[in-house]
Amino acid sequence: MATPTRIGLAGLAVMGQNLALNIAEKGFPISVYNRSTSKVDETVERAKKEGNLPLYGFHDPESFVLSIQKPRVIIILVKAGLPVDQTIKTLSAFMDKGDCIIDGGNEWYENTERREKEMAELGLLYLGMGVSGGEEGARNGPSMMPGGSFEAYKYIEDILLKVAAQVPDSGPCVTYIGEGGSGNFVKMVHNGIEYGDMQLIAEAYDVLRSVGKLSNAELHQVFSEWNKGELLSFLIEITADIFGVKDDKADGYLVDKVLDKTGMKGTGKWTVQQAAELSVAAPTIAASLDSRFLSGLKDERVQAAKVFESSGVSDIFVEQTVDKNQLIDDVRKALYASKICSYAQGMNLIRAKSVEKGWDLKLGELARIWKGGCIIRAIFLDRIKGAYDRNPDLANLLVDEEFAKEMVERQSAWRRVVCLAINSGISTPGMSSSLAYFDSYRRESLPANLVQAQRDYFGAHTYERIDVPGAFHTEWFKIAKQSKN
Amino acid sequence: MATPTRIGLAGLAVMGQNLALNIAEKGFPISVYNRSTSKVDETVERAKKEGNLPLYGFHDPESFVLSIQKPRVIIILVKAGLPVDQTIKTLSAFMDKGDCIIDGGNEWYENTERREKEMAELGLLYLGMGVSGGEEGARNGPSMMPGGSFEAYKYIEDILLKVAAQVPDSGPCVTYIGEGGSGNFVKMVHNGIEYGDMQLIAEAYDVLRSVGKLSNAELHQVFSEWNKGELLSFLIEITADIFGVKDDKADGYLVDKVLDKTGMKGTGKWTVQQAAELSVAAPTIAASLDSRFLSGLKDERVQAAKVFESSGVSDIFVEQTVDKNQLIDDVRKALYASKICSYAQGMNLIRAKSVEKGWDLKLGELARIWKGGCIIRAIFLDRIKGAYDRNPDLANLLVDEEFAKEMVERQSAWRRVVCLAINSGISTPGMSSSLAYFDSYRRESLPANLVQAQRDYFGAHTYERIDVPGAFHTEWFKIAKQSKN
Repeated sequence: MATPTRIGLAGLAVMGQNLALNIAEKGFPISVYNRSTSKVDETVERAKKEGNLPLYGFHDPESFVLSIQKPRVIIILVKAGLPVDQTIKTLSAFMDKGDCIIDGGNEWYENTERREKEMAELGLLYLGMGVSGGEEGARNGPSMMPGGSFEAYKYIEDILLKVAAQVPDSGPCVTYIGEGGSGNFVKMVHNGIEYGDMQLIAEAYDVLRSVGKLSNAELHQVFSEWNKGELLSFLIEITADIFGVKDDKADGYLVDKVLDKTGMKGTGKWTVQQAAELSVAAPTIAASLDSRFLSGLKDERVQAAKVFESSGVSDIFVEQTVDKNQLIDDVRKALYASKICSYAQGMNLIRAKSVEKGWDLKLGELARIWKGGCIIRAIFLDRIKGAYDRNPDLANLLVDEEFAKEMVERQSAWRRVVCLAINSGISTPGMSSSLAYFDSYRRESLPANLVQAQRDYFGAHTYERIDVPGAFHTEWFKIAKQSKN
Repeated sequence: MATPTRIGLAGLAVMGQNLALNIAEKGFPISVYNRSTSKVDETVERAKKEGNLPLYGFHDPESFVLSIQKPRVIIILVKAGLPVDQTIKTLSAFMDKGDCIIDGGNEWYENTERREKEMAELGLLYLGMGVSGGEEGARNGPSMMPGGSFEAYKYIEDILLKVAAQVPDSGPCVTYIGEGGSGNFVKMVHNGIEYGDMQLIAEAYDVLRSVGKLSNAELHQVFSEWNKGELLSFLIEITADIFGVKDDKADGYLVDKVLDKTGMKGTGKWTVQQAAELSVAAPTIAASLDSRFLSGLKDERVQAAKVFESSGVSDIFVEQTVDKNQLIDDVRKALYASKICSYAQGMNLIRAKSVEKGWDLKLGELARIWKGGCIIRAIFLDRIKGAYDRNPDLANLLVDEEFAKEMVERQSAWRRVVCLAINSGISTPGMSSSLAYFDSYRRESLPANLVQAQRDYFGAHTYERIDVPGAFHTEWFKIAKQSKN
């Protein structure tokens, strides 16, 4: 290595290694560093194997930092929280004013904002950049959501534009998101939406297998077919793949041998908590989180199943004749309609935060950079971009003229599927809470008048009237008592 | 006033005034103080009018504090947050070692824990005490949830036992909850459950009025009737009352003139956020919070209703013949079954926190002290107490033998109501998410196997198997690709 490299990357676990190789492959000489040096050597080895890529390994932080051209840019990909602080401390000791650190992990956005301030005191710039796409995306083109210092973004815009997933007609899957922790926040909601998509697909699977009695081979067919239409997406594609994988340990398909316990890492939880904080209803995402929680209670569920089976719970369900093709068609429509609700929730959550923080985020642009590279990539995001292109101030995706039309066309099927599931004792928390969201949102008069009357009754919280402006309080108890006498 | 008073109370808004009068009426001489002195005079005036009660007003904090016998106990009832800190600062300046402050507001439990530590440094004791019952409860007998210093609790146990609501056969609605912020936490979940109850009642109302076409007079009848059976409770009682109140400004019933926008004050939000934090599914409570959020979007809903009406959305619903009496019966059962799910969630949330913090909370005892005084008081709480008496380690209320039996008896009606609502375009987010909770919890095999397979596919998160212990990873993509070729 004769001349300084263009960029550095510290933290060489799966994501870091692959992103570093991606950057090198795009022609940007890169320095890499990891606390445990074996990962450095491993990455250097891979760079050689994968085409003599311009990647240079360092075993100590000082020579790593000094090997990078100024102003230096270093991407760090370590575990969120304390490890990020430690890595920053280690590296910043050797960095100069104007240099920049980019955290590429799933960090809580407030941590990024704190660090941006701390770094500014040292004269350093800082970005929090959500990176989605898993191992494969990192290596071949992820979707990236950088937020924080715009100046720092400009240092490496050329790199990010080349490293990101490239989508025909809509460009590289990266854009400057906004100030502060906006990049992390947007990535967090991306993950919340991902939870929703996965849960909705799982419910579609459940209804098809449990009510429709579809085999794995048939499910493989159905999801492959779905992946040619409006549902075309990475998650539908991999679902089709999964149903095609045979067990290598025993007879049958592997999916049937996987324990029904879902893990999680925190971004879904944060999304639900932020929705509550910002007064945004996000029931589909919340239902997907709750489903993961309930999946974890395997032993309790086995016990409960016994309790209710012995009470003859399964005897009372309504017998229903099911036309398999009609069911498949209905479930596809229910899945799509629910998905629209879920994205509407996620987008409105992002907007609420953007307003609170003054980030001025562009929802259509977010839909664009999610079209490739990331886990929720889908043809459907084009529709979302289109909706926000038509009206950037759209109150809710549901009332965009195109989506509204799609909802209307699908709602009969959607209602059939949810009722069929209910009458079969199959829970579809994501689909049913999406439907309730739709039916609440498009309802001029909700029964919230009663709730507010109750609040005024016991807590004198006052109420508004539909006919006259102002805040009113009524002595409900006294009046009711009088009329009783 | 010749001798010192037994206790002091600072903060004479509605709750404070009424609680002070209650304490005085029970024979405990009380000193009262408020920053704006008019409230002090008002309270003194009321004490005279309401029977020359032993209540003494003070216009300055020093003479207020000094008027109380040692060790002094002062209840403060001011707005949560900063006002509590300010009041503590004002009062503690005149207090002596061993004295105690009790915060009776809806405070975030961590604030109480912080203050308990700060007070300890001054040699003072501290309690965070949830008080439920509104104005009427505070005056005549609230439910109280004191947590923090047990020593401090013992100072005033005799007062609390007399001031609390008294329930025949189960005693005063107060007990020492536990250490730290446990009193606030339990009150917070109480409020979350209250949100759930109110939402479920609103949905019952909505189905009966919108699908069953019941008039307010009929609704008044139905809820009065319900209040004689298993649903007997304060909230059902006041709902019946509300349907009987005529509008004094125009023709018709007042409930129809109340705007369908529900306010909120934060405890419901905290409950939902804590449930997510503690990995406890609480979909009924979350649905009630979301419903409040959506109720607030009145203008958006009016717009959305127009968009979908013009698309002929209401034309497609399934026409259903409804037998009014059957519907009323079904809705009652659906409401009761949903309520069980909601309480199961709340109780499990409390237990999860108790385990995390080592509070050792007694769930049956909480059900007991909620039987009177508070907003969620209900005959039904006896059943919950019974369930935990039978088995303090009960994993979930749903699997208690009595509740399980009740669920089984009601589930057909419950499924009918939710499907009827869905086919009528009426959202029942609380009832349907409760049903999904029930159907998920009692299900041995959820479709979470697919979600975990997806996570392993794109993120190498590994999975467990149903047949062999261990963590497994599969190269799904490679295998799927091979089988395609």
